[in-house]
Amino acid sequence: MASEGRVTSFDVARAAGVSQSTVSRALRNDPNIGSRTVKKVLEAAAALHYVPSSRARALSTGATNRVAMVIDLDNPLWPLLVGRMHDELAGHGYELGLVASHGERDVETQLADGSVDGVIVSASRLASTLPDTLRGRGIPVVLVQRHSSDPDVDAAVADDAEGGAAAARMLLEAGHERIGALFGPADTSTGREREAGFRRVLTEAGVDLPDRWVRYGGFEMSHGFRSLAEVTGGRTAPTALFCANDTIAIGALNAAHAAGLRVPRDVALVGFDDIETASWPLVELSTIRVPFDEMLRSAVSLLLERIGGFTGLGRRVVHPVVPVPRSTHLRP
Amino acid sequence: MASEGRVTSFDVARAAGVSQSTVSRALRNDPNIGSRTVKKVLEAAAALHYVPSSRARALSTGATNRVAMVIDLDNPLWPLLVGRMHDELAGHGYELGLVASHGERDVETQLADGSVDGVIVSASRLASTLPDTLRGRGIPVVLVQRHSSDPDVDAAVADDAEGGAAAARMLLEAGHERIGALFGPADTSTGREREAGFRRVLTEAGVDLPDRWVRYGGFEMSHGFRSLAEVTGGRTAPTALFCANDTIAIGALNAAHAAGLRVPRDVALVGFDDIETASWPLVELSTIRVPFDEMLRSAVSLLLERIGGFTGLGRRVVHPVVPVPRSTHLRP
Repeated sequence: MASEGRVTSFDVARAAGVSQSTVSRALRNDPNIGSRTVKKVLEAAAALHYVPSSRARALSTGATNRVAMVIDLDNPLWPLLVGRMHDELAGHGYELGLVASHGERDVETQLADGSVDGVIVSASRLASTLPDTLRGRGIPVVLVQRHSSDPDVDAAVADDAEGGAAAARMLLEAGHERIGALFGPADTSTGREREAGFRRVLTEAGVDLPDRWVRYGGFEMSHGFRSLAEVTGGRTAPTALFCANDTIAIGALNAAHAAGLRVPRDVALVGFDDIETASWPLVELSTIRVPFDEMLRSAVSLLLERIGGFTGLGRRVVHPVVPVPRSTHLRP
Repeated sequence: MASEGRVTSFDVARAAGVSQSTVSRALRNDPNIGSRTVKKVLEAAAALHYVPSSRARALSTGATNRVAMVIDLDNPLWPLLVGRMHDELAGHGYELGLVASHGERDVETQLADGSVDGVIVSASRLASTLPDTLRGRGIPVVLVQRHSSDPDVDAAVADDAEGGAAAARMLLEAGHERIGALFGPADTSTGREREAGFRRVLTEAGVDLPDRWVRYGGFEMSHGFRSLAEVTGGRTAPTALFCANDTIAIGALNAAHAAGLRVPRDVALVGFDDIETASWPLVELSTIRVPFDEMLRSAVSLLLERIGGFTGLGRRVVHPVVPVPRSTHLRP
C-alpha cells in the first residue's frame, strides 16, 4: 500500500478534466469558478478519497487553525497540562500540536516554519529567548504556568508568591517552629516566587529559616528524595519542610518512608500544585492548589486575541491559589 | 511585533535582486543556480533572518523529517511513552509531533495532510480503523504497545500473554489459592492477552477464578479503586488480585488503604507495566515489567523502514517481559 503514494490535486484535476489550479480554486470556493465545475471537482475528489493538503492551504491562506504547545520533558508537570490544553483548544476549533523538547532545545525551527498560528510555551525559564524569537518572527506566543523576565510576553500564571506565603502560614498555624525548605530552580518564576512568598511570611513571624535546612533543586522527585535525608540527618532536624512542588514533596515522602520516618509525626511536608497524586489516600499531601483549568483557559484566550491581531502590551493574568490542608502538614 | 508578519521568500528575492523561484531553487541547492547567485541569496536570507518554510519545502520534496505520534489522553500510560519516543526519534534526525486525542477521534485529518512522513499510534483499540485509513493514503504507520486485529499493520508490543501467565505463577508460588482479577478492556490486545495468559496458568494449576472476584474496566485508577471494594466486600474474599496494569493496581492499593486493609496482609496485588510509581518505597508494587525502551526502539525501526520504502507484509515484534516481585504479591 505504501508504494501507491498519496492522491494529489493533480490526480483530481485529471479525473475531473480540469487544470490543477482550477481544482485548488474550486476547493477554496473561489467565486470565479462556476458551480458546475466545482461540483465536478468535488465528485472527483470524493471518488479518489482526496484530502486537501493543509500545508498547501496554509501557504495560500496563511491560517492553519493549529496551535503548538512546547513541553519540557524534564518538567514532570507537562502531562497534566496537555490533556486540558487539548480540550480547551478543541472548544475553539483549534488543533493542538505538541513539540516536545529538553529545555526548549531545537524547537525554534519546528515552530517558525508557519505550520501553526500560535505557540503556547509551558514551563519556560526566566531567561528563555524562545518567546522573544517567536514574536520577532511575527508568531503569537503565550507563556503558561511561568512568566518570563520580558514583560512584553503574555503569560497566564498562578499567584506563586501568595501560594508560598500560604504554605508558610499553614506550617506556622500547625505549630511548627523548626522549618526547612526544598526550593525549586531559581531560574524559573515559579521557583523564585514561591520561595519569596514563603520566606516573607516566616520573616514576618520571626521564624528563622537556617541555610542548613534549605536545599535547591529541580522540580523532580529526586530532589525531594535526596534532600530529605540531608536536611533531617543533622544534629538537630526541622519538624517540617516546605517543598516547592508536589513532585518534590512526594520524593521526600518516599524518602521518609524508606528511612522509617513517619509523615507528619517525624517530619511534616507541604507541597505545591495539587496534582492528582497529592489526593491519593496513600499520600494525603497537604498542598497549595494551582487552578490549572482556569490558567490554561486564560492562556488560550490571550493567544487567540494575539492570533486575531491584538498588538497591545504584554499582559500577565495571575490566578489565585487555594491552600489544601490534608494530613502531611500537621504537628501531632 | 505581531503585525510585522513573517519574512517570506519574496522579501529575500527582492533583497537579493532575483526572482522568488531563484530563491527557492538556490536554497534547495539546485545545480542550475550559479554559486554567485546562491551566495547572494544566502546573504539576503541571513540578513533578513529568513527561515524557509518546512511546509513549502515538504510540498516540493515530499519529505518532512517529522513523525507524528497519536496519543490517547484517556490512557494514563502516554506520558511515559512520549519522552522516550522523542529521544529515540531525535537519534535518527526526526522531529516528533504529538497528536493528542480522546480515543483517536478527529485525528485523521491532522495526519493525512502530508505534514509528517509517518505515524506511530499508541494505545490503539483492536478494531480501530485509523491504521488502515492511513495506510490507504500511503502514509507509513506503526502501532506501539498494542496491536490491531489487522495483521497487515506493523506493531511493536510486549509479550502480554506471557506476562499474564507470569503474574499468575507469581501469586501461585506465593501460596495464594483464593485469587481474583481486575482485567482491562476486552477491545484492546493488552487487555485481552494479559487476561488469556493469566487464566491459562490458573486453569493448568487447577485453581478456580470465580466470576464474583473478577471485574473488567478501563486501564485507570478508578477501576482499581471501585473494584477492590466490590470483590473484597463479599462473604468470602480473595487473598490476592491480579490487576491488568499498574494504574489499576495503584487504584486498588489506595482503596485498600482508605478502607483500612493492609497490602499484602489483607489483600495481595500484582500489577503490569512497571511504571515509575510501582517502585516507590511507599508503593513497592509487585508487577510485570514491559521493556518500554526496547519496544519504542522497535517501533521506530519498523516505521523508518516503511518510510524508506519497505512494502512487505505487516510485522509484529514481540518483546519479552520480566516479573518484578516486590512486596505486594506476598502471602504473609
